[in-house]
Amino acid sequence: MLVLKTDAANFRVKFEEILKRGKMDIENVEDIVKNIINEVRERKNKALFEHISKFDKWTPIKDDDLVISKDDMKKAYENLDEDLKCALHLAYDRIKAYHEKQLPKTWLTFEDNGTILGQKVTPVERAGVYVPGGKAFYPSSLLMNVIPAIVAGVEEIVVTTPVIENKPNQLLLAALYICGMPKAFKVGGASAVAAMAYGTETIPKVDVITGPGNIFVATAKKLVYGEVNIDMIAGPSEIGIIADESAKPNYMAIDLLSQAEHDEMASSIMITPSEKLALKTKEKIYEFLEELERKDIAEKSIEERGAIIICKNIDEAIELMNEIAPEHLEVVTKNPFELLPKIKNAGAIFLGENTPEPIGDYIAGPNHTLPTGGSAKFYSPLNVEIFMKKSSIISFSKEAIEKMGKDCALLAKTEGLTAHQKSVLERLK
Amino acid sequence: MLVLKTDAANFRVKFEEILKRGKMDIENVEDIVKNIINEVRERKNKALFEHISKFDKWTPIKDDDLVISKDDMKKAYENLDEDLKCALHLAYDRIKAYHEKQLPKTWLTFEDNGTILGQKVTPVERAGVYVPGGKAFYPSSLLMNVIPAIVAGVEEIVVTTPVIENKPNQLLLAALYICGMPKAFKVGGASAVAAMAYGTETIPKVDVITGPGNIFVATAKKLVYGEVNIDMIAGPSEIGIIADESAKPNYMAIDLLSQAEHDEMASSIMITPSEKLALKTKEKIYEFLEELERKDIAEKSIEERGAIIICKNIDEAIELMNEIAPEHLEVVTKNPFELLPKIKNAGAIFLGENTPEPIGDYIAGPNHTLPTGGSAKFYSPLNVEIFMKKSSIISFSKEAIEKMGKDCALLAKTEGLTAHQKSVLERLK
Repeated sequence: MLVLKTDAANFRVKFEEILKRGKMDIENVEDIVKNIINEVRERKNKALFEHISKFDKWTPIKDDDLVISKDDMKKAYENLDEDLKCALHLAYDRIKAYHEKQLPKTWLTFEDNGTILGQKVTPVERAGVYVPGGKAFYPSSLLMNVIPAIVAGVEEIVVTTPVIENKPNQLLLAALYICGMPKAFKVGGASAVAAMAYGTETIPKVDVITGPGNIFVATAKKLVYGEVNIDMIAGPSEIGIIADESAKPNYMAIDLLSQAEHDEMASSIMITPSEKLALKTKEKIYEFLEELERKDIAEKSIEERGAIIICKNIDEAIELMNEIAPEHLEVVTKNPFELLPKIKNAGAIFLGENTPEPIGDYIAGPNHTLPTGGSAKFYSPLNVEIFMKKSSIISFSKEAIEKMGKDCALLAKTEGLTAHQKSVLERLK
Repeated sequence: MLVLKTDAANFRVKFEEILKRGKMDIENVEDIVKNIINEVRERKNKALFEHISKFDKWTPIKDDDLVISKDDMKKAYENLDEDLKCALHLAYDRIKAYHEKQLPKTWLTFEDNGTILGQKVTPVERAGVYVPGGKAFYPSSLLMNVIPAIVAGVEEIVVTTPVIENKPNQLLLAALYICGMPKAFKVGGASAVAAMAYGTETIPKVDVITGPGNIFVATAKKLVYGEVNIDMIAGPSEIGIIADESAKPNYMAIDLLSQAEHDEMASSIMITPSEKLALKTKEKIYEFLEELERKDIAEKSIEERGAIIICKNIDEAIELMNEIAPEHLEVVTKNPFELLPKIKNAGAIFLGENTPEPIGDYIAGPNHTLPTGGSAKFYSPLNVEIFMKKSSIISFSKEAIEKMGKDCALLAKTEGLTAHQKSVLERLK
């Protein structure tokens, strides 16, 4: 694992590599994905049947074959291990409670001249949630995408997921039941994104598509952006840690590994002024590695993309971390809250030694769908607002237009828009 | 101009054409735009010089040639007609006051077990605003894009605009001065979008790009989406009017024309249960048309894309309008506010006969950059939040992790993520 000092001659070169992490090469798959989207757009369910046959190892024959029924969900839920059921319900309740606090409100303001201005907030009618399938199914992803849409008040939530060999994952079914979904659809990949963007005989066209996925799904989301809204284009997972000498090396080590185990392309970066912590943490990483089920993935990620950076002081650590703009940021210092004003770019900020990043993946409440690859500089975590939209409200009284109409007409005239000008002047007659 | 009744046999066919309005055929220009972007990405200012030479009829020689200086802005401002200066300041102040009300706040919540959850709001560091140039320069567009970024607290706002023959529009310069911009950059089209997305020797890389533009600009924005955030992909302008028999035909006619004059591709649609209003409005439209400077554009738009729909009642009007999801919606009925609960999809809603749409273009305060082509179903008006992003805040106490850690570890184990599991269990030891 790379250990770097910020005063080393080659530091900036190495650091630039970290900054360039996680850029996905969408161009390579763009033509394939465009074809898939066009096929679904033109031949709808028929195209879906073919794609499923090709990728998911089963062949739907009629439209209904695409549907996962509520009955199947209920059965899976009833067979669920009791402890797991409790854990999923706890997660559901906490995620719901957090996202309820995000709900924006409609507001109005008034002026003495009779002007009323405001902003109306309305949920979108239909939201589409993509859930990756096969062996990598994560029930937590379903909760994190569906709950914000429920809280937003979306009327119809369309869940799509690939179902390999037509054998649905029982945990997925149970999680769908917990979320109260009336049905879901067995279709995955770029085909699922296309189906939700344009609609088919069975799958309704939605207004917004969210959810993680591989590069085909990410590319499809980018291509249909504008036809529908999307949450973000997410790449491999990342963790950044800012720690001082008070941090425990075993905590730091296992937290870095918790991102590394996601993906060989994941990035785990710690920045600390404590050389002692740096070296001890590195040691602990190799100890823990041996105990992991996903050791191979975690090891490759740590070796190729992990880094511990030894810096001059905490201020420098924060500056560098703001450049990295990590998806997850742990701050493990004596008084982590005092650093919050300076932390500008991070998807989620985990404060203190009792807040390991996995707490945020499952149980804390905030969303675990977070901007990656430095896009925390401009994207927010998945939240209820992606499932809502605003309309401006404007109401002028006779008095208001008499007061401001002349200025408005002058601006319209200046722009050469005489119908705009006349439209105001007509009211001033 | 098309007049349609909802009970006519061919109504749905005609209505579907309205729903399909304003789809831009980005694919046709995608390859050209990709080339432009790649050139700017690779050769930076050198590529910009070539593109300016090709499209803007002048040839920059050195990097500084791209810069519009504060001095030039000041001179233009000082030469501005006094009435126009006042009108622009009024617009500036009202737009600023409205957008200040949109500012989201950082919040924190607490649980008795010591858990702290919240959401931190931070402005992006740099925002890029594209301003169309040449004969179609609209000072109002500059205000509507720059002011939300100022209100959001963005440190550096990068304004780019094409300057034909290197002769800057004096009104643009004055408006830049009113906005307090320290400088701006003379580059337009897809090149400007690429420069802001990737940075050049002179133009800094930004986090978010907003602003209207032609199909090349729109396509470039879509292509760089993900590298930076963008506001939306906007198409031709539109107005929808819901009116009852109380509406004045001359008001309705000139308001419909005020969108039609923007663009031959603009759509102006009125839906009313009053056949009398429908026919009178149509008559008035042809009268007003003769008086417009942009008669040819407005006429083509009204003939090819305008429509008056006679419906059964106001409820049907609202239903149809929600399907259309117009950029601008005027509601001119006896009591327009009582219809607000049912209005779901519209960029901006103008209530009552004294609120003509142009009031919202210039002076009311809400943004005039609004979702078009039906995308009001999922996009919001341009607002301060595009220039800000959120970070989740999570802090667990020892007590909190002891209470919830077991459930969290179980979920991690269920997903096969043993480092996640251990990261939590390590704290429970």
